[in-house]
Amino acid sequence: MTEQNKKSHGRLAISAALQPRELMQDRPQLQGSWTAKIVTLFPEAFPGVLGASLTGKALKDGVWRLDTIDLRRFGEGKHRNVDDTPSGGGAGMVLRADVVSRALDDARRGTPMNRGKWPVVFMSPRGKPLTQEMAQRYSEAEGMTILCGRFEGVDERVLEEYEIEEVSLGDFVLTGGEIPAQALIDATVRLLPGVLGNEASTEEESHSNGLLEHPQYTRPAEWRGRKIPDMLTSGHHGKIAEWRREQSEKITQARRPDLWDKLKDRGADG
Amino acid sequence: MTEQNKKSHGRLAISAALQPRELMQDRPQLQGSWTAKIVTLFPEAFPGVLGASLTGKALKDGVWRLDTIDLRRFGEGKHRNVDDTPSGGGAGMVLRADVVSRALDDARRGTPMNRGKWPVVFMSPRGKPLTQEMAQRYSEAEGMTILCGRFEGVDERVLEEYEIEEVSLGDFVLTGGEIPAQALIDATVRLLPGVLGNEASTEEESHSNGLLEHPQYTRPAEWRGRKIPDMLTSGHHGKIAEWRREQSEKITQARRPDLWDKLKDRGADG
Repeated sequence: MTEQNKKSHGRLAISAALQPRELMQDRPQLQGSWTAKIVTLFPEAFPGVLGASLTGKALKDGVWRLDTIDLRRFGEGKHRNVDDTPSGGGAGMVLRADVVSRALDDARRGTPMNRGKWPVVFMSPRGKPLTQEMAQRYSEAEGMTILCGRFEGVDERVLEEYEIEEVSLGDFVLTGGEIPAQALIDATVRLLPGVLGNEASTEEESHSNGLLEHPQYTRPAEWRGRKIPDMLTSGHHGKIAEWRREQSEKITQARRPDLWDKLKDRGADG
Repeated sequence: MTEQNKKSHGRLAISAALQPRELMQDRPQLQGSWTAKIVTLFPEAFPGVLGASLTGKALKDGVWRLDTIDLRRFGEGKHRNVDDTPSGGGAGMVLRADVVSRALDDARRGTPMNRGKWPVVFMSPRGKPLTQEMAQRYSEAEGMTILCGRFEGVDERVLEEYEIEEVSLGDFVLTGGEIPAQALIDATVRLLPGVLGNEASTEEESHSNGLLEHPQYTRPAEWRGRKIPDMLTSGHHGKIAEWRREQSEKITQARRPDLWDKLKDRGADG
């Protein structure tokens, strides 16, 4: 750890240069850029993949900001302990409420208290599964704070005290919340104005209409004896759109009857 | 790109030292370590978070291996193009079947052809949502190949030709398959023998019994006027287990009626 990090209480800002730099503690958080604040034991894992491609370009361009807050620095005692054994026994370790609260208090500086404007989220398999609608909602906020868990979880009291929204990536278990946090940020940041080169992309793709995407083809016209469907090279744009819609519906019915049922319930399809 | 990388056709192996090193092309793939081969345009994004914590330690210890295969190196022409415009029009770009197939052929060397022993997966929102059961199945294979998409998707013909399993992280859209690939690998690797320190952890946690996890508490006994529930400090282990089970059931019913219904269907709960 550098002297600079010590002074900043473990808060690093990753922005224009993709290099961590010191943030002044009382600097107003927002200057129009959507900001993700990540409370984590692995700040070095960020920006990770988010530093590449479209999200990376948008980070460099200042369309969004990423601040990491090293949970370890708020730990107890000489060893900066952040966790302890579960009350009542059992395997693993639980993140302490007091330690997590100090990190969250640090993250809170300069951010709106209103959870609509600034959601505070804990990545957890107990949470609400992330959806495109949630990513849309987060992208409309000014930014958000994401707590990444490790071990068996976090003391329930801090989740209650800070009105933390638990969000799950799906019905599987990971070693920590860092990968889910990156998924959530990716899904959210790409919805910010100016991040995707072609705005039509967000509208046409999977899940924005509740259907899975139709098959895609590109050159070469024939490959290993397999040809691009004639319809797609017909030039009839109306018929192509109709064919794609049919394909989307077929794939959705076959692969995701749950999504298909939801669509029918909403009456979106008659 | 270094001369070494050119010779190895873009294949990098990330193993013991966490440093990419050259792999001899005809070296048998397996030496008892579960191996993930990642076909990606962003090989530098790996191992990412997977290099930290328990998965990172297991990578260093050789419990598992990570090989990245740079899709760009199999591209067409001087600019190594990997994608082209969608047949039939539309936004975005589609990964070419011929380019992807060359990378998959490279990944295939030294791996079993049997998809049960060596699954080949494409991370896509059109796929089957990842579950703990799927991670369990992958962890029982010898390894797997994961194709990470970008842009609008990949030419359907290569998915058919290579019998590729499409796997989704959930009902949201990401800029690419790299974060989902890391999630899948994390979920899978932690199930390999020797990765988790405490084996009880995998058995007790969320989703292994179909229920969400009960609340967790740890020291301090009182924090901001909130106390640890008396039950947990009672010392009655049987009653604690019962209380936790009840809490898990309550939380599952409240937050995930879909999971609760599935459990009842399976008769797991009478």
